[in-house]
Amino acid sequence: MICTLDVGHKNDENDMRKRGNELKKFINLPENCEKEMILGLVKANPTYLRKLDCGNVIVRAEKKRDKVALITGGGSGHEPAHAGYIGKGMLDCAVPGAVFSSPTPDQIYEGIKAIATPAGVLMIIKNYSGDIMNFEMAQDMAEMDGIKVAKVITDDDVAVQNSTWTIGRRGVAGTVFVHKIAGAKAETGASLEEVQRAAQEAIDNVRTMGVAIAPCIVPAAGIPGFEIAEDELEMGIGIHGEPGVSKQKMKPVDEIVDELLSHILEDMDYYGSEVAVMVNSAGATPQMELLIAYNHIADVLAEKGIKIYRAYVGEYMTSLEMQGMSISLLKLNDERKALLDSVADTPAFKEFGR
Amino acid sequence: MICTLDVGHKNDENDMRKRGNELKKFINLPENCEKEMILGLVKANPTYLRKLDCGNVIVRAEKKRDKVALITGGGSGHEPAHAGYIGKGMLDCAVPGAVFSSPTPDQIYEGIKAIATPAGVLMIIKNYSGDIMNFEMAQDMAEMDGIKVAKVITDDDVAVQNSTWTIGRRGVAGTVFVHKIAGAKAETGASLEEVQRAAQEAIDNVRTMGVAIAPCIVPAAGIPGFEIAEDELEMGIGIHGEPGVSKQKMKPVDEIVDELLSHILEDMDYYGSEVAVMVNSAGATPQMELLIAYNHIADVLAEKGIKIYRAYVGEYMTSLEMQGMSISLLKLNDERKALLDSVADTPAFKEFGR
Repeated sequence: MICTLDVGHKNDENDMRKRGNELKKFINLPENCEKEMILGLVKANPTYLRKLDCGNVIVRAEKKRDKVALITGGGSGHEPAHAGYIGKGMLDCAVPGAVFSSPTPDQIYEGIKAIATPAGVLMIIKNYSGDIMNFEMAQDMAEMDGIKVAKVITDDDVAVQNSTWTIGRRGVAGTVFVHKIAGAKAETGASLEEVQRAAQEAIDNVRTMGVAIAPCIVPAAGIPGFEIAEDELEMGIGIHGEPGVSKQKMKPVDEIVDELLSHILEDMDYYGSEVAVMVNSAGATPQMELLIAYNHIADVLAEKGIKIYRAYVGEYMTSLEMQGMSISLLKLNDERKALLDSVADTPAFKEFGR
Repeated sequence: MICTLDVGHKNDENDMRKRGNELKKFINLPENCEKEMILGLVKANPTYLRKLDCGNVIVRAEKKRDKVALITGGGSGHEPAHAGYIGKGMLDCAVPGAVFSSPTPDQIYEGIKAIATPAGVLMIIKNYSGDIMNFEMAQDMAEMDGIKVAKVITDDDVAVQNSTWTIGRRGVAGTVFVHKIAGAKAETGASLEEVQRAAQEAIDNVRTMGVAIAPCIVPAAGIPGFEIAEDELEMGIGIHGEPGVSKQKMKPVDEIVDELLSHILEDMDYYGSEVAVMVNSAGATPQMELLIAYNHIADVLAEKGIKIYRAYVGEYMTSLEMQGMSISLLKLNDERKALLDSVADTPAFKEFGR
């Protein structure tokens, strides 16, 4: 198998490498990106992650315990989502598809089987039609094996009601809060119904909106996912470059933040609440810019009587090297505060517990 | 004070915002980037960080303890370095200059005074002439106050012997290992001499080399830091875009990794050793590409009889939105393994302890 691949590599070398070179990416053959990325991820985190022999399915390395098991997935290209969140207090399995493509039902089914416990399995699905279809097919297959499976669907993006690949709102970076909340709840030994309820309440209380100023290039496609002029931004963009609410002239980040927040705050009443804030990089946005944005977010929320309980600023659900960011606000209650605060130990999300 | 700034902002608005827009960055006024970034960082991490009233000096929020205190600093634009590493088991103070510029002696002196304990203060300085001069001036001022101060200078970059701003090798991403090792040693209650020795031994045992495929733009400058053709890479680049060993045609990442590793492995004998590996993003490189690179690094080191004890893949010492990466190898002994493994709790680096 390794020999065959090596020979293939050498035969196609000149042609394929040229494609890689034209892309100016740190890759080898474009069609091997997902496979090599997953191997790298597992090799870098052997105490956390294990790859199933049957394909691109990543599960917790440690012995499974009798608790509700959590599975999620979606296209690759959103790293550290989703496999970076596998570990204590978060996920048990992540199933990555090709870049920006849904994982297959077979993959998901293998993942469910690998992590299933008598307590059951909760599927956390971002609201994309292909993802939902494939997760539901896997659920049917697993239920025929007698595995108890439930699901929640995240749809936190307030930018658009329907989109390129979605009926209803898209599931975006707020999904990471759902991983944390549901994972922490499962860790307490709660029942499948209780974990599902906590996850659904997190979904009901999180809103996100994003903006981009430059696209990314899917390696296998070799061209930018969308076009944008040198002096323009795309307000309300999705995590695969799906169009948002408007193309606009570039403006200071404080004004961009004001617009993102106004959509989020119009959509749900946060007044007087405590919130967790996530400022998520689309991939290529420097931390300096995320922090400048956060500085203004903190001021605006303070003015509006919304108390920030916790802030998360960094790369949580990216879109390869897209230049952009999203803001997520999770409205908190005592349960969600405790679940956010509880211990998480994963490659990409660590929480000591408070 | 705030009013004055606001008026200034409005007066210069059209002119300055145009500059921000042309840059396609999520910023407000270019000259306010550092200030707003630091405010955002401290607001996002109130349990970890506190900004001194006297200027851009960031210290640990928690009450100081009688242990050796660690201070570092350098230009802004390398986030999460350096203030992201302030907290338990790592740093006590970080002093950020303007983007890619040394902090001033006054700033550093204020930082030293704020964190000084009877056990003394260790300065961790990256080898740039301006940084060293300013830290040493601050040291002189602090010693006149009776504060015990020692220093170490990191110079892990094997690419070039001297550079634009350096006599001798540059201090780059391997410095983060020195923060971890020295911080963990200080946490044990070791003396200043002992912490300095552990830090120096980490420096003696770490080597780094980097590569870039696209430059970054310093907001105040408004133009890319270096030029590079559409089909070229710069091998051996510094963290401010200083030239490296050669401009080359783009090639597959496995070959890029081979070249970086060959320079590192020629410089020090790692054979038969255990190492910690850091694959550090220059800022805009997606995690997918870092992981693809790591996949090959792991294979190459295994072939060469070098055992990977721990891997760190992500953004550790960036250069704004530069597209690039560096590889660092830290040779380990029992002491460094234990110090790497010990608890660290900072905004950007968390280690549960093993």
